[in-house]
Amino acid sequence: MKEIRKDMITGDIVIYSSYRNKRPLDKVKATSEFDNKEDEYSESCPFCRGNTSNIKEIKEEIKNSKGEWLAMSVANKFPILDLSTNEIFGEHEVLIETYRHNGSYYNMTNEEFKNTFTLIKNRYRELSMRKGIEYVSVFKNSKRNAGASLMHPHSQMVSSNLIPPEIMKEIKVSDAYKNETDRNLYEDLVEMEIKNEDRLIYNGKYFLAFVPHATRYNGEVRIVGKDDLNVDQWSFEHIDELSYLFKNMFENMEKYHGDIPFNVILHSKTVNKEIGKEMRTHFHIVPRKYNFGGFELTTGLYVCGSNPADLAKAFRIK
Amino acid sequence: MKEIRKDMITGDIVIYSSYRNKRPLDKVKATSEFDNKEDEYSESCPFCRGNTSNIKEIKEEIKNSKGEWLAMSVANKFPILDLSTNEIFGEHEVLIETYRHNGSYYNMTNEEFKNTFTLIKNRYRELSMRKGIEYVSVFKNSKRNAGASLMHPHSQMVSSNLIPPEIMKEIKVSDAYKNETDRNLYEDLVEMEIKNEDRLIYNGKYFLAFVPHATRYNGEVRIVGKDDLNVDQWSFEHIDELSYLFKNMFENMEKYHGDIPFNVILHSKTVNKEIGKEMRTHFHIVPRKYNFGGFELTTGLYVCGSNPADLAKAFRIK
Repeated sequence: MKEIRKDMITGDIVIYSSYRNKRPLDKVKATSEFDNKEDEYSESCPFCRGNTSNIKEIKEEIKNSKGEWLAMSVANKFPILDLSTNEIFGEHEVLIETYRHNGSYYNMTNEEFKNTFTLIKNRYRELSMRKGIEYVSVFKNSKRNAGASLMHPHSQMVSSNLIPPEIMKEIKVSDAYKNETDRNLYEDLVEMEIKNEDRLIYNGKYFLAFVPHATRYNGEVRIVGKDDLNVDQWSFEHIDELSYLFKNMFENMEKYHGDIPFNVILHSKTVNKEIGKEMRTHFHIVPRKYNFGGFELTTGLYVCGSNPADLAKAFRIK
Repeated sequence: MKEIRKDMITGDIVIYSSYRNKRPLDKVKATSEFDNKEDEYSESCPFCRGNTSNIKEIKEEIKNSKGEWLAMSVANKFPILDLSTNEIFGEHEVLIETYRHNGSYYNMTNEEFKNTFTLIKNRYRELSMRKGIEYVSVFKNSKRNAGASLMHPHSQMVSSNLIPPEIMKEIKVSDAYKNETDRNLYEDLVEMEIKNEDRLIYNGKYFLAFVPHATRYNGEVRIVGKDDLNVDQWSFEHIDELSYLFKNMFENMEKYHGDIPFNVILHSKTVNKEIGKEMRTHFHIVPRKYNFGGFELTTGLYVCGSNPADLAKAFRIK
């Protein structure tokens, strides 16, 4: 079966080919890049508690009652953007999500997720208030195959004086939907996914998690906010629910995929700019089990071989 | 130094950040997926000479004087596209570039490259003549991290009833250039790179190889045809020169990068369609040393840390 599907959020065109995942694979040595059974502390890691003399500037810390830090945001020593030029500028912070070197989204506690989302909210607010900033990107690279240079669990935040092309793409799709139907794309999508049931992972008070009908990223999961709030407007209840959802969903994902590399990308609303009113804050969680090959690079067409309903069943929070 | 550069061929916006490549990296076990010292024959490989009872359909063979095949094109058993639907259709062939299981672009002979490009030309011609076909994609995935499922050296060809989005993007860029300047983008680019010298790898009679001023793919090399010929119009002389170029450039690339995964993607002209007259046949050679991280996925902005002149110097054919 070959079928063309269109991603409702991004507009991407995807070829669904039900048996491509059945191809034979030569056995190759798997890279088990990072052993979760490693110690809580690594002497050579610049992000471990006690090693923070390596850190250029602490922007914000969350501490325990003993005064030890649990999570913190620091200036990136090798920023993608900085304030040195006027053409393109922004700030780049690293959010260290736990003091535990051997932490990961597959084993973090509810408390650790809450610290992470609280830091994301606070730093997002701070960076978005700087002059000239129009967008704040938040993302996580977990393991080398997902682009991580350091293995200690962390997310990143990059503010910029421009709205990135991928965000503009989603804004245009949601604006076009509004023009055609006079309705909000994300509201309709949430309603449709709840009604459909098959692709649902979690139907919460504030967030809906599901496997999209079409995505260029084999195995992607999406989380869409049910209300029109930006990241800096999340309440404690939003953060509680997100933490519960991430903890339980990642446990299920590990059972299914194993301890694989992944990216979390947070697509939020623009800041200080009257554009993108129809776009809603959402997450893309992208497993990096498969690498794009030449076909995707050469054509910009993506081939998917997984059945969304099967994945949703495996990841579902009961 | 941060600088915004625009890729002249694709229109991609790239952030050049000269010191991002100096980031510290945690040591991780490297995946040496495939050992070039393996035998010429592998019992479990469906593409090895003698094992071809696994092959569904041989489309074309190049044989030696003993009647043994040296290279061949076969139907892909797990096609991305086939002729089963009208919505999107095409054919998918696998071009086995040498009978040697342990062959690779890093060690193939001039003769093996000639067989490869001859097969590409012939199969391209055949597939492009089918009814309703508008484009023929040719690409190579070398090793698992570049998307290869089988390690035996091969390229792939997928014809389609539509012009892929990535090709449309390049067509639009070259059409816009024509409208603005009344000149051909590729002619100007070839002239500019020859004049500049710094980024040149090889300046041949028919092809120019260089490291582009801007590319979203760290370390990419491009080869642009100096004339306006499509793949099926290549003469023996074109194929000779391409073989010489590939053999020598890949030797230099291996010296610099080691035996890393890569993709070769061939962007050719459209077929049976009055569109893309300003676009010229060219190759993108994409090393898969680095993986895109969340920043690239979330923004569609690409960060490059390599200096094109340094790479060109290392890859240059003297």
